[in-house]
Amino acid sequence: MTLRYAARMGKTPRSFIREILKVTESPEVISFAGGLPSPALIKVEGIAEAARSVFETGGAAALQYATTEGYLPLREFIADRYRRRLGLDVGPDEILITNGSQQALDLIGKVFLDAGDAVAIERPGYLGAIQAFSLYEPRFCPVPLEEDGPDCAALERTLGEQDVRLFYGVPNSQNPSGITWSREKREDVASLLDGTGTVFVEDDAYGELRFSGRSLPPVKKYLPDSTVLTGSFSKIAAPGLRMGWICANPEVLDRLVVAKQASDLHSNTLSQRILAQYLTHNDIDAHVREICRVYGRHCTLMSSLIDDLFPDGVSRTEPDGGMFLWVTLPLGFSSMALFERALAEHVAILPGLPFYVDGGGENTVRLNFSNADEDGITEGMHRLARALEA
Amino acid sequence: MTLRYAARMGKTPRSFIREILKVTESPEVISFAGGLPSPALIKVEGIAEAARSVFETGGAAALQYATTEGYLPLREFIADRYRRRLGLDVGPDEILITNGSQQALDLIGKVFLDAGDAVAIERPGYLGAIQAFSLYEPRFCPVPLEEDGPDCAALERTLGEQDVRLFYGVPNSQNPSGITWSREKREDVASLLDGTGTVFVEDDAYGELRFSGRSLPPVKKYLPDSTVLTGSFSKIAAPGLRMGWICANPEVLDRLVVAKQASDLHSNTLSQRILAQYLTHNDIDAHVREICRVYGRHCTLMSSLIDDLFPDGVSRTEPDGGMFLWVTLPLGFSSMALFERALAEHVAILPGLPFYVDGGGENTVRLNFSNADEDGITEGMHRLARALEA
Repeated sequence: MTLRYAARMGKTPRSFIREILKVTESPEVISFAGGLPSPALIKVEGIAEAARSVFETGGAAALQYATTEGYLPLREFIADRYRRRLGLDVGPDEILITNGSQQALDLIGKVFLDAGDAVAIERPGYLGAIQAFSLYEPRFCPVPLEEDGPDCAALERTLGEQDVRLFYGVPNSQNPSGITWSREKREDVASLLDGTGTVFVEDDAYGELRFSGRSLPPVKKYLPDSTVLTGSFSKIAAPGLRMGWICANPEVLDRLVVAKQASDLHSNTLSQRILAQYLTHNDIDAHVREICRVYGRHCTLMSSLIDDLFPDGVSRTEPDGGMFLWVTLPLGFSSMALFERALAEHVAILPGLPFYVDGGGENTVRLNFSNADEDGITEGMHRLARALEA
Repeated sequence: MTLRYAARMGKTPRSFIREILKVTESPEVISFAGGLPSPALIKVEGIAEAARSVFETGGAAALQYATTEGYLPLREFIADRYRRRLGLDVGPDEILITNGSQQALDLIGKVFLDAGDAVAIERPGYLGAIQAFSLYEPRFCPVPLEEDGPDCAALERTLGEQDVRLFYGVPNSQNPSGITWSREKREDVASLLDGTGTVFVEDDAYGELRFSGRSLPPVKKYLPDSTVLTGSFSKIAAPGLRMGWICANPEVLDRLVVAKQASDLHSNTLSQRILAQYLTHNDIDAHVREICRVYGRHCTLMSSLIDDLFPDGVSRTEPDGGMFLWVTLPLGFSSMALFERALAEHVAILPGLPFYVDGGGENTVRLNFSNADEDGITEGMHRLARALEA
């Protein structure tokens, strides 16, 4: 029996990351390939205690159907934190709880994209967004990423030539590059998009993980009505709870709620309540500071090992936050070949190719510095240096 | 700022059920409108104990990223249960864990439907499926539902006239009607679809909730390769965990996994592990028998109150399982008007209109008998009888 599939399935890349994760799951492999937080920084006991409390005080409600928008105290926590951290004036009625920020991207694609619509995205751009939007069959328009954010002249040309429905970007510690947009770039992007009808999708998965410098205002601050901001608890609490959110003006949020109803009714009630309990009964600011301290040390260590051990002609970014370093090998080097050789040395890396919607990037590599500990990073980077020499 | 939305958003009905649920949330309202399980039949302590055990024995893994396919012991439990209960020979590699069975429908739409494709559906048909598939902009072809399943002559005509991509049905205790397809209808549907390339989407949310008669073989038994079977733990464990699944042949499952990756990476790790622990350390068969006993009593009570209290000319279905009764008022009666009058009497019902993809059904009503207890059913039906008299 041959079944026919929807056209969109031919356009959606299988997640290279998740396929690689399967290869690299064996315990002797040190992995810089995925995007997992450090297991030592997930507060298992604190979350377990929050779960006990939820079951004791409201177990029946935590196991029943609930509203599509999400658990109000959790939405209030998110809105409060935006106000305190970023001076962003949003209320809980502008927050929709999603299954991680990956679902946020799916819902945004559902609500905004018709087949053939133009979607601008940083080059290199986040693979998860490329996948999520691909299901809605857009045309991707890559905007080169410079050291301080997108190439605004290129963005302006793209906006002039095409009716761009969405521009997707990660202004804080971008995935895959680790680059943070400067304040000027944020303002420039906002003023380029203002009044055009193009929606800016601001993915802020890493904004809290800033280990040097001060937090910059989100683009949403400059472009409040047509920015859709997404966030995630995967990096500051626990990814297994699959808790993310969308922050958007009430008119847009209303559409996203309809799409969420049709897609899965609502997010996990129990985990929303456990998370709200955990966040409001623990010192999250202190926990975030601890994460930033550890990831900052990891990043510095990995950076210095690249500088010490890798051959001349290798360059790297200098992240001020997040979980990733971006390495460019000398021209002519293949990161796919390096991936194979590295795996033989029991270290896993992520070739940069799938982050390019228009091809290219054959000599680029994404390295994750959050998951392995310092001994693992040191050992893994020595192994990787050996693979590079070969 | 006027933003432009995708065309699909104009075609997706807002969930009437969920809007009604908001109206009927006040505690003095007895609700027959939703589809909530009885709160008395959710084993809060058993699930809390499973959660404690998960945190004690594997808390770190329960809070980390995990595979898209889902937690293997949970998929093994589902496959085992299919083998034991229904003689269905499936393995865990044919099971994908989803966020409730609503997400199963979304993923099936993603994988199979291009805009304009024909989707056959029972008339009346499940509103959640109409919503989920609407996002993929199909043409719906209603197939009249008779007392023992779909009108197979009408189905045959539809298949002859159109290239039907999916046929969606609920053979056990259908939502909204409570009708169970006969064995003959199951065989006939399978033989009509066999070799056509049309996929049968068999929604089996209620198969375990059978309180009279014996379980019949699923259509998948007769049409194994081109049936995609969906299931849910919302009715036999707890809806707040948002745990459902898809059972399909490995080739189809592979596509569904790609769609799931792009949509939200994977389902909630913690809840999958809690559920697997709960299911394998409690007597689920005894629990399901208890649910069936209670819902059977509720259904009998509601049926006899309809017969005793409602005016002549009202007819109803005779469910042998599930959570819903379907009432047809005399021609000319409006269930929307009854909804308003019933709400004034503090009882909520669900007008049948949104279950008809081609209009009609103005005099039909869906009544839920699982959520209210027996006192609530008795009082609510008296209120409803008063509203009907008015």
